Amino acid sequence: MIGRGEAMAQLQFGVIGHKGRMGHALEAAIADAGHIMHVGVDAGGSIGPFAAHCDVLVDFSAPDALSANLGAARVSGKPILVGTTGLEEEHFVMLAEAARAVPVLQSGNFSLGVTLLAHLVREAAARLGPEWDIEVLEMHHRMKVDAPSGTAKLLGEAAAAARGIDLAANMESGRHGQTGARREGNIGFATLRGGTVAGEHSVIFAGPEERLTLSHSAENRMIFARGAVKAAAWLVGKPAGRYTMNDVLGL
Amino acid sequence: MIGRGEAMAQLQFGVIGHKGRMGHALEAAIADAGHIMHVGVDAGGSIGPFAAHCDVLVDFSAPDALSANLGAARVSGKPILVGTTGLEEEHFVMLAEAARAVPVLQSGNFSLGVTLLAHLVREAAARLGPEWDIEVLEMHHRMKVDAPSGTAKLLGEAAAAARGIDLAANMESGRHGQTGARREGNIGFATLRGGTVAGEHSVIFAGPEERLTLSHSAENRMIFARGAVKAAAWLVGKPAGRYTMNDVLGL
Amino acid sequence: MIGRGEAMAQLQFGVIGHKGRMGHALEAAIADAGHIMHVGVDAGGSIGPFAAHCDVLVDFSAPDALSANLGAARVSGKPILVGTTGLEEEHFVMLAEAARAVPVLQSGNFSLGVTLLAHLVREAAARLGPEWDIEVLEMHHRMKVDAPSGTAKLLGEAAAAARGIDLAANMESGRHGQTGARREGNIGFATLRGGTVAGEHSVIFAGPEERLTLSHSAENRMIFARGAVKAAAWLVGKPAGRYTMNDVLGL
Amino acid sequence: MIGRGEAMAQLQFGVIGHKGRMGHALEAAIADAGHIMHVGVDAGGSIGPFAAHCDVLVDFSAPDALSANLGAARVSGKPILVGTTGLEEEHFVMLAEAARAVPVLQSGNFSLGVTLLAHLVREAAARLGPEWDIEVLEMHHRMKVDAPSGTAKLLGEAAAAARGIDLAANMESGRHGQTGARREGNIGFATLRGGTVAGEHSVIFAGPEERLTLSHSAENRMIFARGAVKAAAWLVGKPAGRYTMNDVLGL
Repeated sequence: MIGRGEAMAQLQFGVIGHKGRMGHALEAAIADAGHIMHVGVDAGGSIGPFAAHCDVLVDFSAPDALSANLGAARVSGKPILVGTTGLEEEHFVMLAEAARAVPVLQSGNFSLGVTLLAHLVREAAARLGPEWDIEVLEMHHRMKVDAPSGTAKLLGEAAAAARGIDLAANMESGRHGQTGARREGNIGFATLRGGTVAGEHSVIFAGPEERLTLSHSAENRMIFARGAVKAAAWLVGKPAGRYTMNDVLGL
Repeated sequence: MIGRGEAMAQLQFGVIGHKGRMGHALEAAIADAGHIMHVGVDAGGSIGPFAAHCDVLVDFSAPDALSANLGAARVSGKPILVGTTGLEEEHFVMLAEAARAVPVLQSGNFSLGVTLLAHLVREAAARLGPEWDIEVLEMHHRMKVDAPSGTAKLLGEAAAAARGIDLAANMESGRHGQTGARREGNIGFATLRGGTVAGEHSVIFAGPEERLTLSHSAENRMIFARGAVKAAAWLVGKPAGRYTMNDVLGL
Repeated sequence: MIGRGEAMAQLQFGVIGHKGRMGHALEAAIADAGHIMHVGVDAGGSIGPFAAHCDVLVDFSAPDALSANLGAARVSGKPILVGTTGLEEEHFVMLAEAARAVPVLQSGNFSLGVTLLAHLVREAAARLGPEWDIEVLEMHHRMKVDAPSGTAKLLGEAAAAARGIDLAANMESGRHGQTGARREGNIGFATLRGGTVAGEHSVIFAGPEERLTLSHSAENRMIFARGAVKAAAWLVGKPAGRYTMNDVLGL
Repeated sequence: MIGRGEAMAQLQFGVIGHKGRMGHALEAAIADAGHIMHVGVDAGGSIGPFAAHCDVLVDFSAPDALSANLGAARVSGKPILVGTTGLEEEHFVMLAEAARAVPVLQSGNFSLGVTLLAHLVREAAARLGPEWDIEVLEMHHRMKVDAPSGTAKLLGEAAAAARGIDLAANMESGRHGQTGARREGNIGFATLRGGTVAGEHSVIFAGPEERLTLSHSAENRMIFARGAVKAAAWLVGKPAGRYTMNDVLGL
């Protein structure tokens, strides 16, 4: 359950990559949850001794440091949550290997609400026939440089998977001009940009004379840190294996 | 699946209670779906011969006629969908009895979208802890005389059931004046009235700095007729038993 | 005022171009408002005798018929409302000429709500500085073939005019891929398509940590006919001249 | 214009009542706008020497200190913005008196967006007839103890004033149970509570088959501080007088 029940015990968090915006957010989220944060080295150094004193490792550093960080987790036998972005094929191989020894959870989005939203989108898309058009709408602040957002695509992927179709082949994004009528089965995307909006996503199922809309709204970026903390705490005591945010929420 | 796949075969619909607003909506929905509508007697008369020529009976008449209508279904061996409102305890006993002989589906709301929404609300409420406040918002036209709407309560019930609590004991409706802070675990209701709005419902899960909102919007009342037609078609060929809209949608 | 006060007197409406979807909607709207509808010829014929019996002419026919229709209005001295689409430069010259003799109101959108929305958008855009990003979002049914909608552009034009900028040079529509950060002062457009949505438009002013959103939602296409009837009734008794929907609403 | 144009000159802000949540928000907002903050005494002390060094005084202290603060403004000839809450009749008399000597702006809500929203609500309510039902919806965090919010009432007052009616006599709030049909001309209120929502307000005009919705959303409480800073800067150089937020926005 996404709630407070699981946060009863005070845990020692070993955070690798504690600088920058995400590091500060993590620090606040760990304190808010009543846990203790320890700061590891940023990249590559000897983090083994440090890992031994922690209950769980949290890695938001860099792809190059992943190998050493996973190694420290294995040597110390501690679970590790990885939020580093820019991972390549080789890194996923490392994650799979480490998961044979310790609990490993890697994700690009630790928001509990978005994880649940993706689950609900799958549920709805699996049950609504092709005359229910699926549209994904997102809004972010004026500084965001790409469209649609990664989370919008994640939600579109959830819908596509539930319908048994390939998103790339059925994506309708960037409508402008003489578009022609909407193609049945397509998944549409629309992008709003402006102000300081932290992130809003809606998945609209538009059927004949009725509409179902599933939305998530983030008030600020702290929710991503808070989700990571909750997920890391959940990892403690689990058997070795590769976990996802769906596992954390029991989805 | 809520879609067109299941509507391929042309069926003979026997409609009892074909007058009034719902009758007209049913007539249009049956034609739209490519089926044929036959009109039975309104109440109590000999509907047996009529039933024998139909694939499914659809009863939107009156409680007093239920006994005869269920009897006709049993004698002819045909499935029956019941949308009559104002049913009492005795009628539910009749429905259960008839369901031992033929497929029976009774509901007060045949909207596919609302049925799916209630399912998604259960899913979300079961997974979100008590620091996620649940609020139900609804808007209907200016002529509606009660608040909150029956569907809003249905959605609140779905949330309460998933949380293992009793709705009546945890309902917070009609806020006005010095309310005090929101009580954790309560399910709040807010009611908007105005214009000609056919029906809009939102269930809001408001957590710490993020929000999940699940909404349904009906453009007009035809969707209830269309849902009934889809459900009736689905009943054809099923074994005897008592079915719900959840069964129609595979929920 | 947009209300019922002005609809007290029963008027004789002469409708030219009474067939098709808009003709049927007009027929219903005229009856709803307590007026009487007379049907003229569709194009070019002798509509003079017919016009003499009406209080106001309503032309939803074709560009080719405009000259004759305006002529009939002038000869009979009756006001004329023109909703014909596809007008060219030459037609606007004709309208200006006719407006020297009789009251003339031509528009591509007679919705009272959208007319008021455009007015409010001008008000807001004139007062909010450039760090308030303006975005226009619209949703229409799956059959619509172009994007953004004409009404979305009309709303964008209202915002651009209030800011003293040219819309075409500052329009950001069809975002997809590596868009870069939003350019300050641009007006963004996003398009949703799906189901049977009659028409929804939102203009979003996204400032630093706050947002103002002005939205219009049409339940069906009748509102356009209803707006035309109200505007035509308003024209009766006015002096010769060229009027707009803003005049009808006193904006 | 609500924008950056007016913030070019660096000003000296004299803040009285700089502690607490609002004081911290003001400090950040003043720095963000490129101005300098000076801290006065909290209540009653000798603030005259301090005031002489400032361009504008900002008072968020307590009603008891108002007399001394206004006195310091008059002696030093500096404009004063008052955001203190809990003012009584006697305080308004003091404000009127001070406004004969220096520029004075007092308000309970310095949000630029809400001020503009109230203006747009007046515009819309003045033009939409009584068959357009007006509803005010608000959502705030779970800790808020009264309903509807002060800002919701302010918006309802704006609508009522534009319609020439008394809000108290036409307010429909806290709907629950057998309410009967909506009374024409009433202004309805609905209240949502949950999570950490900083403040969202919508005014809905629900007409026959169309709807106009004017909404404001605050991402956090900083916007109130930012609005106060902008208003205080605007006061500098104005002639003596009593000003409102409408004057700041040129409404």
